[in-house]
Amino acid sequence: MRTPKQLGAHAEAMLAELAAFSDGDNGLTRLYLSPAHRRAADHVAGWMRAAGLETAVDPLGTVRGRWKPERKRRLLIGSHIDTVVDAGRYDGMLGVVAGILAVEEIAARGLALPFGIDVLAFGDEEGVRFPTTLVSSAALAGCLVPSDLDTRDAEGVSLREALVAFGGDPEAAASAAYGRDEAVAYLEVHIEQGPVLEAEGLPLGVVTSIAGQSRFNITVTGEAGHAGTVPMALRRDALAASAEMMLAIEDVARRGAAHQMVATVGRIAARPGAVNVIPAEVAFTLDIRADADAPRHAAIAELEARLLTIATGRKVSARMEKFFESPTTPCAARLQEAFAAALGDLGLGQRRLASGAGHDGHAMHHLTDVGMLFVRCRGGISHNPAEFAAVDDMGLAVEALVGAAVRLAADAASSGDRT
Amino acid sequence: MRTPKQLGAHAEAMLAELAAFSDGDNGLTRLYLSPAHRRAADHVAGWMRAAGLETAVDPLGTVRGRWKPERKRRLLIGSHIDTVVDAGRYDGMLGVVAGILAVEEIAARGLALPFGIDVLAFGDEEGVRFPTTLVSSAALAGCLVPSDLDTRDAEGVSLREALVAFGGDPEAAASAAYGRDEAVAYLEVHIEQGPVLEAEGLPLGVVTSIAGQSRFNITVTGEAGHAGTVPMALRRDALAASAEMMLAIEDVARRGAAHQMVATVGRIAARPGAVNVIPAEVAFTLDIRADADAPRHAAIAELEARLLTIATGRKVSARMEKFFESPTTPCAARLQEAFAAALGDLGLGQRRLASGAGHDGHAMHHLTDVGMLFVRCRGGISHNPAEFAAVDDMGLAVEALVGAAVRLAADAASSGDRT
Repeated sequence: MRTPKQLGAHAEAMLAELAAFSDGDNGLTRLYLSPAHRRAADHVAGWMRAAGLETAVDPLGTVRGRWKPERKRRLLIGSHIDTVVDAGRYDGMLGVVAGILAVEEIAARGLALPFGIDVLAFGDEEGVRFPTTLVSSAALAGCLVPSDLDTRDAEGVSLREALVAFGGDPEAAASAAYGRDEAVAYLEVHIEQGPVLEAEGLPLGVVTSIAGQSRFNITVTGEAGHAGTVPMALRRDALAASAEMMLAIEDVARRGAAHQMVATVGRIAARPGAVNVIPAEVAFTLDIRADADAPRHAAIAELEARLLTIATGRKVSARMEKFFESPTTPCAARLQEAFAAALGDLGLGQRRLASGAGHDGHAMHHLTDVGMLFVRCRGGISHNPAEFAAVDDMGLAVEALVGAAVRLAADAASSGDRT
Repeated sequence: MRTPKQLGAHAEAMLAELAAFSDGDNGLTRLYLSPAHRRAADHVAGWMRAAGLETAVDPLGTVRGRWKPERKRRLLIGSHIDTVVDAGRYDGMLGVVAGILAVEEIAARGLALPFGIDVLAFGDEEGVRFPTTLVSSAALAGCLVPSDLDTRDAEGVSLREALVAFGGDPEAAASAAYGRDEAVAYLEVHIEQGPVLEAEGLPLGVVTSIAGQSRFNITVTGEAGHAGTVPMALRRDALAASAEMMLAIEDVARRGAAHQMVATVGRIAARPGAVNVIPAEVAFTLDIRADADAPRHAAIAELEARLLTIATGRKVSARMEKFFESPTTPCAARLQEAFAAALGDLGLGQRRLASGAGHDGHAMHHLTDVGMLFVRCRGGISHNPAEFAAVDDMGLAVEALVGAAVRLAADAASSGDRT
């Protein structure tokens, strides 16, 4: 039995090993089904076998390590081992490493659980290579869209072809799915990728949901004019109108703090775009997220009304077109409780927070209940080589994962669940 | 003696003739010292001679038509015959045509003036071809910067070379200047290029000044972050800060309405510019103008303070760098009175307004008092083939120009001015 500090040091060493598998010479880039992904998958499978797990690579390239494979009911613990371009070494990989270490500890401590555990190393969470994402977890959850296998990467290689080259089996994709009666739950440890835990001095946090999100293109049309000759009162300035709209967007999101609402205008362009011409047309994007769908939809409705009011008052027109939407994935109350209890046992605060970023849990929710544990992330920085989680925090995360598994075992026993 | 309507119809016909001299086949484009400028200058000189004026092209390519050339004291009336790319036919040209028609009327009516009149057709007001502007009026006003002759157009042709090709004489540039004791005043008729007169149902307006202007590049630096994981309260969003700054800019300009203040953010760019990333840096431009320098400078100082306050409150930084400034050119009170009296004689309102756009008067102010008369311009549209001024309005402008010249003659007589 290792202390949390020892577990954290072990996790750190494993993450350093894994970071060596990159498709480029500089930094860490490991796209789905790439040579680096193949080598990383083999390395992870090696760790799993050393931990006493029975391993296999499924049709979509997910490495599965099975503890107590003879048991029908399985607790699923996982995350992903693909990365963005020029990535950090924690995003995704920490959840896989934490799962392996947790199973090692459960076995080493002789903890009696009424279910087996599968540690899962997904390959397609970042969605960088193909114009789709979460296919590896979707296949496992039984919600893969078959036509996704025909999408192609920038070099024209289809996902189907890439799977064959990787050693996967696209024809067997349907067989990758778990039965609904097999899964106990899906648990994932992940770095927060945001600054909340750090700001509050907490090593870990319990995820309440994976935020749903909606994205819009907003176009404001006014009238161009000479910057010197059109009085302020006679202007129909598309950019001044957009500025007022951006502050309304910020205001609506701020007032949705109770729902962890965030709204971002990330892109903006003004035409004609000359220093001495009043902008005639401005296009900007809106990305809005919250911890549940209802408050997000209510905020969008409020924004539509406020933008229209601003446009009318300034005699400009505004068009708001949705180009992306993904629903909120709630984290099951019983899994939040299991994590919270484990944090309590460790003497830690039990901060609950939504995940603003997407995760494999979004697909796994189609199969079973999802629970997530966030690990403090320095400066909130992610998708960047500067990404960092502390050794102590990672060790506590492994310990909390063990604690949550034990809590689920107790719940299963009290509810008469049989494996 | 023609009625205002007849004068307007005559002006309209002359402007239509002049619009045929273009450097392209489509629309009207006539850059300084181009072949079309040469042909237009010859055509204008022909009109001047037909009106009884003695003509010459000066070293910088300005066509000068002299009425009563033997008189030392000269009233200067002019505007420009160069255009922007894909221009309208009124901007500049109307002032030259109005000058010729006014002198014809003064002669036809046998009006006794104590000074001669020079009608001037400048060639470099738009500043499109060379990286300088107003060189033709500056030479005449004695404030030409000699090094401007060495600037080059996009093809690498120097202004000096282009002048020689045109038939000008760059070596004689210094001799183009009037003596200070020669000029009575400089008068210019020009389309408003803005919507004020139209909005108030007035055909003509008296210009109070040519607005000074200052231009800035403003850079706001915050911190990039994940659009889903950074709570609103922890953001340092450079674009949200910029939106608040843009509204402050608008507010300051609106409150400066008494000084005809206008402020425009015409260009904006946000980095990194991704739909799901909080903007780290935003750059935008500010163009601010007013009818006098003091209120413009006060507004800039206020804006600097307000932008700093906004930046501080949002934990971002803001940099405001001036890259252009031109001082206000006041129109002489006596010339405003002369135009206003002429408008009164015509039974017209005497609206006074600053010119937000730049004009040759800006250079001519170095030589003598400047007076300008604005003509209503449909929709405020200029620098566009849709530019339009009504026949009746143009006829009234010629009549007002005659009236102002007569008023100046009376002033000169009462003050004992001798020609």
